[in-house]
Amino acid sequence: MLTALELIGIAAFAASGAVAAVRARLDVFGVTVLALTTALGGGIMRDILLGVRPPTALVTWPYLAVAGGTGLIVFWFHPTVEKLRRAVLLLDAIGLGLFVTAGTSTALALGAPPYAACLVGMTTGIGGGALRDVLLREIPLVLRKEIYAVAALGGAVTVALGDRLHLPADVVAVAGSVLIITVRVLALWRGWNAPVARKLDG
Amino acid sequence: MLTALELIGIAAFAASGAVAAVRARLDVFGVTVLALTTALGGGIMRDILLGVRPPTALVTWPYLAVAGGTGLIVFWFHPTVEKLRRAVLLLDAIGLGLFVTAGTSTALALGAPPYAACLVGMTTGIGGGALRDVLLREIPLVLRKEIYAVAALGGAVTVALGDRLHLPADVVAVAGSVLIITVRVLALWRGWNAPVARKLDG
Amino acid sequence: MLTALELIGIAAFAASGAVAAVRARLDVFGVTVLALTTALGGGIMRDILLGVRPPTALVTWPYLAVAGGTGLIVFWFHPTVEKLRRAVLLLDAIGLGLFVTAGTSTALALGAPPYAACLVGMTTGIGGGALRDVLLREIPLVLRKEIYAVAALGGAVTVALGDRLHLPADVVAVAGSVLIITVRVLALWRGWNAPVARKLDG
Repeated sequence: MLTALELIGIAAFAASGAVAAVRARLDVFGVTVLALTTALGGGIMRDILLGVRPPTALVTWPYLAVAGGTGLIVFWFHPTVEKLRRAVLLLDAIGLGLFVTAGTSTALALGAPPYAACLVGMTTGIGGGALRDVLLREIPLVLRKEIYAVAALGGAVTVALGDRLHLPADVVAVAGSVLIITVRVLALWRGWNAPVARKLDG
Repeated sequence: MLTALELIGIAAFAASGAVAAVRARLDVFGVTVLALTTALGGGIMRDILLGVRPPTALVTWPYLAVAGGTGLIVFWFHPTVEKLRRAVLLLDAIGLGLFVTAGTSTALALGAPPYAACLVGMTTGIGGGALRDVLLREIPLVLRKEIYAVAALGGAVTVALGDRLHLPADVVAVAGSVLIITVRVLALWRGWNAPVARKLDG
Repeated sequence: MLTALELIGIAAFAASGAVAAVRARLDVFGVTVLALTTALGGGIMRDILLGVRPPTALVTWPYLAVAGGTGLIVFWFHPTVEKLRRAVLLLDAIGLGLFVTAGTSTALALGAPPYAACLVGMTTGIGGGALRDVLLREIPLVLRKEIYAVAALGGAVTVALGDRLHLPADVVAVAGSVLIITVRVLALWRGWNAPVARKLDG
């Protein structure tokens, strides 16, 4: 069950990377590389920070197959995928929820203090998308839009608090994921954005 | 004492990241994330290169509190901070001096050869600012302006030489930091820049 | 012999970084930093992924000397180097060939499964150039042009297959390198490019 959800998250992130790559007019290999980078980048950053060697993402072939396969599917069918834009955003929210809570749990299990575990969990969820945007010469969306970082923070804190209160890990992970997904879906649906600083000339 | 200086360095780098983020019109979370990234990025790169797990910056909560708090202060008071531009540049020079020498010393203490320790020290001082500029889609300032890299190199070499000559580590660290800060302040004050290659059509 | 080839690869990558930095009007330190980053970045990424501490590139001074020296030579003589554009591209192909096969072999020797070793090998060959392009605010060429990623993949798979078939490591490494170099030279000479996705409005 959890593995199935993980693969859905990976496919969602891979699709978001591949769609962005198609828009930037990359060729089929560039699209595949960007799908892999977006889907696996966050998990690789987590493992580098925590000292897990070699990174799980590199030695788990279903992750690679799902990410690469999703990239190729987007490349061939992208006009249809474009129409599925809402579905991709929903899947991206699911991916964010699963990656942040899984990253936070992994860090806690390896003995990181709660605030460090939250940062590692947020990096897991946000890292792949940030890498995607940097490679395509964009300011990472997470820095600019729609309550992305704060949704991730909320989910990570939920997991860390649950761990401190000795609640069952599964329940806490589900609660954190649901929180993240709900906040992201509401933010997209209602056009929520965080406050921007006052204009310099204001 | 050293810890107080370290926290000043972290606050200076966090302020430089937050000011840049405010200018790029990021929201409050983007500003906080960029303050954390700029302040802690160089130290995390150092720990990744040296194999320190988990990175010190992630498990030392005062670092996180100072960096995040500085980001929020800049977000709310940034017109004032803008007027403090010179102070921020001075603090940035202090941060560079402290981070480069601390990074070089740490690498030497872990057994790295002198030239490797210098590279690690320079990465510690320069890495956070480079990350800030890449995330905001700028060519890193360190690559372009005002004797930044060479000041860092001078401080790192001072520490490595002092270690080779068995001088007291504290004295050497202070000397290296003072050298870096002096060079940076002079470069900013006098508008020093390193030579640029001749024009291709020249 | 292998070491000589490695140094040629490092010099080629350093030259490509330095030429790009000169074009972006960086100063002499920026050019040197970018030469070092391009030449050593891929190997450092490989060692971070595989857990080799400290990264080989940082503790092997001939690598540093060749990369830094090449950067300075390009800075002073770059109009001539510009005329050597074809030579630089050929050297870059040689560097790619050597780095991908060496990275794949190292990963296999450290016990990585074949598909992970291929990814690590590709990262070794492609990482430095991607870092160069990101620092200069370009979409990495490897994502866009001329069969770069697929040449790297072909060489990595050759090494992994040869290892599985228990062929002599030297022979396999040479075969993989020759394959990569041949594909790259043909792609440059004939203007091969991989397919790009259909236009969104098409």
